[in-house]
Amino acid sequence: MNKKAVVLLSGGMDSLLTLSMALNSGYYVYPLHLNYGQATEPKEYECFNNILKYYGLNENLIVDVEHLRKIGGSTLTDANMQQDNADIPNSYVPFRNANILAIATSWAEVIGASALYIGASEVDYSGYPDCRREFFDAFEQTIRLGTKPDTHITIETPLIRMTKADIVNKGIELAIPFELSWSCYYSNDEACGECDSCKLRLKGFAAAGIKDPIKYKKNIYL
Amino acid sequence: MNKKAVVLLSGGMDSLLTLSMALNSGYYVYPLHLNYGQATEPKEYECFNNILKYYGLNENLIVDVEHLRKIGGSTLTDANMQQDNADIPNSYVPFRNANILAIATSWAEVIGASALYIGASEVDYSGYPDCRREFFDAFEQTIRLGTKPDTHITIETPLIRMTKADIVNKGIELAIPFELSWSCYYSNDEACGECDSCKLRLKGFAAAGIKDPIKYKKNIYL
Repeated sequence: MNKKAVVLLSGGMDSLLTLSMALNSGYYVYPLHLNYGQATEPKEYECFNNILKYYGLNENLIVDVEHLRKIGGSTLTDANMQQDNADIPNSYVPFRNANILAIATSWAEVIGASALYIGASEVDYSGYPDCRREFFDAFEQTIRLGTKPDTHITIETPLIRMTKADIVNKGIELAIPFELSWSCYYSNDEACGECDSCKLRLKGFAAAGIKDPIKYKKNIYL
Repeated sequence: MNKKAVVLLSGGMDSLLTLSMALNSGYYVYPLHLNYGQATEPKEYECFNNILKYYGLNENLIVDVEHLRKIGGSTLTDANMQQDNADIPNSYVPFRNANILAIATSWAEVIGASALYIGASEVDYSGYPDCRREFFDAFEQTIRLGTKPDTHITIETPLIRMTKADIVNKGIELAIPFELSWSCYYSNDEACGECDSCKLRLKGFAAAGIKDPIKYKKNIYL
């Protein structure tokens, strides 16, 4: 029987590549999708489902993390907040990745998975503290001490040292369906091209010399 | 302005004492209650509200952690499972406290709280790995690395070295309303007196030489 991995699949380009890399490493993959009240959840949910179909994956878990919406404190979960340009931009959802990894660990422990895959990168860095490898190392230690003695779960971050251009190039190599992914923080139809996430994605495609197949309202590289 | 603390308040005797100790330490208290699909949630919710009224607390957050019910793997969240007698009993909800603390941390970061209070004890030990101080130490490190640089949150476990008898005695000293708390895992009317949680509570009252004011179907100490 194949070893099992829970893969965090938002529907973005990074999580799509991460899923493909987990499959490539021989894992039987359990995709986990979180709705935490982000403005683009309808589009992300559509992408999540299309990616499952593309790879023929059956098992999955969708969790409505309503508390991150209730708690607020981020432009992604509170429509009344305006985007700023601080070192840690206020699109940061407080401690979001710990909430996501706690859910993933609970599921992994029940189904007997030995790895969690998450598509975080430190290089084209968002500034979010919970996207750094040292955070994931600390969380691994928390898993070791907070689960049963015979539960062994690692956190795999295969994109952690990749630039967005590296991610695009690796995606081409693994023939991932970029057109089924979504990165824009604020729009559900055409990507805005102006939010931090759109800018990073467009920069990655430009650096790789490849055209992004999704549509943009504005693309400074064209 | 008083310093702020998020206090995990299930409605059990231990969390009630923890709340009282946080108030005694001068904190402005934000109680957090989690519904994770446990059989006794109706009773716990009633106790939570009665305790808020008793202490005149206004701010609070109630979170429906539906994923722990979806994920299952525990007698507390899956009605088809039978209680066992393993070293780690199968009332253990996989990685529950990490899920709870992640939510508490997100809330604490948004409201500017500097402490999380949780009523875990290592002494009359349930066998749950996520109730040990070394787990909470690891989680504190995860908080340090996963939140903003100016966020400083400690995890306070004032009951960690207390026996159930100590907890009863301290509760008497602080005049906590034991009659408003609930510990039974399986019953919503009279406490069963037979589950691990009832047995521990009854043992504590017996050792302290005091009568528990709540009603039991069965009480081996009478």
